Amino acid sequence: MKNILGREVPDYIEDYGTVRHYAGAFALAGQPSKRAEARIEKGAVIGQSKLCKDLEEALDKLPLRDGMTVSFHHHLRNGDFVTNQVMEAIARRGYKDIHVAASGLFACHAPLVPLIEDGTITKISVSTFGAGPVAQAISAGKLQKPAVLMSHGGRARAVENGELHIDIAFCASPSCDAMGNINGSHGKSACGCLSYMYADAAFADYVVAVTDTLTPYPNTPIEISEHLVDLVVQVDAIGDPAGIASGATKVTEDPARLAVAEMAAELLDQAGYVQQGMSFQTGAGGISLAVAARLRERMLKRGITGSFGSGGIHGYFTRMLDEGLFRALWNVQCFDIESIEHLARHDPRHLIMSGSLYGNPENKGCVVNNLDIMILGGFEVDTDFHLNVITGSNGVIMSASGGNEDCAAGSKISLVVSNLMKKGNRCMIREKVTTITTPGDTVDGIVTDKGIAINPRRTDLMEKLKGSGLPIVDIQELYQMGQKLGAVEDHPKIGDRIVGVVEYRDGTVIDVVRQVL
Amino acid sequence: MKNILGREVPDYIEDYGTVRHYAGAFALAGQPSKRAEARIEKGAVIGQSKLCKDLEEALDKLPLRDGMTVSFHHHLRNGDFVTNQVMEAIARRGYKDIHVAASGLFACHAPLVPLIEDGTITKISVSTFGAGPVAQAISAGKLQKPAVLMSHGGRARAVENGELHIDIAFCASPSCDAMGNINGSHGKSACGCLSYMYADAAFADYVVAVTDTLTPYPNTPIEISEHLVDLVVQVDAIGDPAGIASGATKVTEDPARLAVAEMAAELLDQAGYVQQGMSFQTGAGGISLAVAARLRERMLKRGITGSFGSGGIHGYFTRMLDEGLFRALWNVQCFDIESIEHLARHDPRHLIMSGSLYGNPENKGCVVNNLDIMILGGFEVDTDFHLNVITGSNGVIMSASGGNEDCAAGSKISLVVSNLMKKGNRCMIREKVTTITTPGDTVDGIVTDKGIAINPRRTDLMEKLKGSGLPIVDIQELYQMGQKLGAVEDHPKIGDRIVGVVEYRDGTVIDVVRQVL
Repeated sequence: MKNILGREVPDYIEDYGTVRHYAGAFALAGQPSKRAEARIEKGAVIGQSKLCKDLEEALDKLPLRDGMTVSFHHHLRNGDFVTNQVMEAIARRGYKDIHVAASGLFACHAPLVPLIEDGTITKISVSTFGAGPVAQAISAGKLQKPAVLMSHGGRARAVENGELHIDIAFCASPSCDAMGNINGSHGKSACGCLSYMYADAAFADYVVAVTDTLTPYPNTPIEISEHLVDLVVQVDAIGDPAGIASGATKVTEDPARLAVAEMAAELLDQAGYVQQGMSFQTGAGGISLAVAARLRERMLKRGITGSFGSGGIHGYFTRMLDEGLFRALWNVQCFDIESIEHLARHDPRHLIMSGSLYGNPENKGCVVNNLDIMILGGFEVDTDFHLNVITGSNGVIMSASGGNEDCAAGSKISLVVSNLMKKGNRCMIREKVTTITTPGDTVDGIVTDKGIAINPRRTDLMEKLKGSGLPIVDIQELYQMGQKLGAVEDHPKIGDRIVGVVEYRDGTVIDVVRQVL
Repeated sequence: MKNILGREVPDYIEDYGTVRHYAGAFALAGQPSKRAEARIEKGAVIGQSKLCKDLEEALDKLPLRDGMTVSFHHHLRNGDFVTNQVMEAIARRGYKDIHVAASGLFACHAPLVPLIEDGTITKISVSTFGAGPVAQAISAGKLQKPAVLMSHGGRARAVENGELHIDIAFCASPSCDAMGNINGSHGKSACGCLSYMYADAAFADYVVAVTDTLTPYPNTPIEISEHLVDLVVQVDAIGDPAGIASGATKVTEDPARLAVAEMAAELLDQAGYVQQGMSFQTGAGGISLAVAARLRERMLKRGITGSFGSGGIHGYFTRMLDEGLFRALWNVQCFDIESIEHLARHDPRHLIMSGSLYGNPENKGCVVNNLDIMILGGFEVDTDFHLNVITGSNGVIMSASGGNEDCAAGSKISLVVSNLMKKGNRCMIREKVTTITTPGDTVDGIVTDKGIAINPRRTDLMEKLKGSGLPIVDIQELYQMGQKLGAVEDHPKIGDRIVGVVEYRDGTVIDVVRQVL
């Protein structure tokens, strides 16, 4: 059947189950929902050591089985060693049909591909994806069961309400003591905070800390504490610092992109969002960061103090905190070394938030609900303002929602910033996006070098921007501009088989990804 | 029937239910247990305010009903206004049969007595008690259903595994923003941390923050975060600073008590517990603190750095942290102004622990399990080393277990320190204690001004202390000394009716308290 956004989504998907169809961005808001599933917990025995001499000893002690769900976090990003190490060890023991529920997978996880091919791994759930071999393998139909593509808030929701039950969580732990008190901000593989693992640590049946920096008890500070951890494994290295964090995040220097950023900042200003107590979130991309730079200038000039910057935190935000332009930061992951080092300084204004506190729509209030301004990334926007942050125009999975749809839903204004024409002369605006990740109801506008389109739903915004001098046009016009500029469209051969189920943050299915032939 | 400690405990207690009998301090250790009961959670609606103009507006919004369970924390100690305010407002609305699950009640809660008498409150569960009107009312049989007397770890266990389901938790919040981000270390009624409310905040159906210090969003630091909080109520005052915290905690100056402390320290030293990485916990009482002082001297002299001090934290411990004698503190509540102020300085080594992390025997490891030395308080010890920290010798409830039985069970050595003869010439050692709180299996010795008795179970300790020169005698001898010194024994008239059920930390019933006629 076609869902309310016109996407072809069946009522039942083999190896996924019965589909709850997407019913609108806020259709389930305020509804009662079950919070915590029972988990069976084996209490500690006093004097019994949690410390394992190696991963094999830990695996000996765990109730491994075919069909189990194991989880990992992605705070080591493209430098993570733990997911590969653990999955290869599980594969060597011959277990099959494993569900890998990682908060994110990157190019460094290429060693998982052979395990997908031999049936060790048959299902993957993920809320962040780096383009690369695993994503390509899924698009090519190599994974037996459909991948489940979630948002960060949606993943925490599913873990906390029991929809995604984790048997064993393996927590890459940059700093850990023998009892399992863990932080991510210290140690030779420091990566910042471990927010996306918090739900797993609290709700998985078993929790295993894998660390390369074993500290005296008690390890300080503590993000995940010993009362949640079963076993502690010491290994030589949990990650490659070069892949964990990028160097300094830099504002774009490209004049066209800077012009887009300036337009976005001007729009936000004229619409009244640049004011005392303002809050905003932006990724670490060049244009996004340039918007932050432009907002910073306005804040400095007018003596504005923002309430918070949120999301993946980068050096640009920590510097704004130190300049007094924010009263606080809400950090859900560190994007660069500067933010990791800042977090390690234990500034009480540099707050860590869990994935649930960040964006879970079922809890009693997540941070995105308090966000004023969200600068969105993405691959394609369509003329209904639906945003695609999952597949490239060639149909291949390149990323996952991350916090995109959480922030779009929660923020007071969400803007996509992009050049209209992108690499290979592909147009940012399409008639229909390849995959819907973030519904148009939650996307307020797109700012491009060729003009700005405001979602007609936001009549208030249109009103405020009358006479602003900004190049506001209908989104159809922007689309036509792209066509006139010779927009290249991909026409990938797409099969029937569903290889990815795109869950909206409330757990309904908003779209599916089909196999690229 | 008589339980294994020889106490008369029925198999079924009216208005309590079927009794799980105490089976030994570690009988249930390492057993699988259910962790989290499902709670129904109403998700936040974006833009909907949590802020109520007064308590009445909050009560209007809550699903109040006869028979509900409401909870409170006791971090405002004898200065708390919130429990009385809320219960009186509920009483005015005519609700009856309320279960008050407070982590602690003090003399300041006298206004609850009329509500007990008129059937508004029919049940109380508590893990800390200050002697006073509420405790006396329970002992006098005024409460319709038996009170449940728990340990701190046992209370967290019961909340987290669903045995103690809380309908509405009212959280006295010294500092809070409009979304419900709470800390206890700031604001005009600052009380330190709010550890005992963490389980309630995570597992109650509804959570209401009651604050007298509303801060801009986001409040920092955060102990309980907005994703757990339904409503925020601003009131004039949540407590009386004079009752919240005592002034400076002081070591005793009484020579006899100092001699007891020195003996305890010497015992610990000769038995090998004074060493690098040592950890200890002591209350804020005069002798206990003097033991800490004596240990401190030994640590300074020998260049020993302890791993941690834990429990209720006082200025003596924060000073030891600042002197480098501990690497960290585990704080579950602040006992004095000095510790509150230290916590507010956000030192990363000053760790807050929840009640569960402190002492819940069902989780994957609590801090008491890592504790070397525990200095225990209490009213009576019997010749089987059973400890009574609940009733006075007159049978009247004076206190509750608090962390006593948790620490006794977890620590490597637990010592009671006391003068043998106490006020009114009552002897600390009795043939049978009035009520068993902490089983003798977990109490390793008692140090008095008239001699030291070591639990015969600790043959290792006896061996180490041979030739120590310490006045070690059999506990029967100490008892006889008391008799010879003319020990006065109370013979209260005790009825049949059970007014208090004493739950051991694992939820089994270790003893009962009967009505004083």
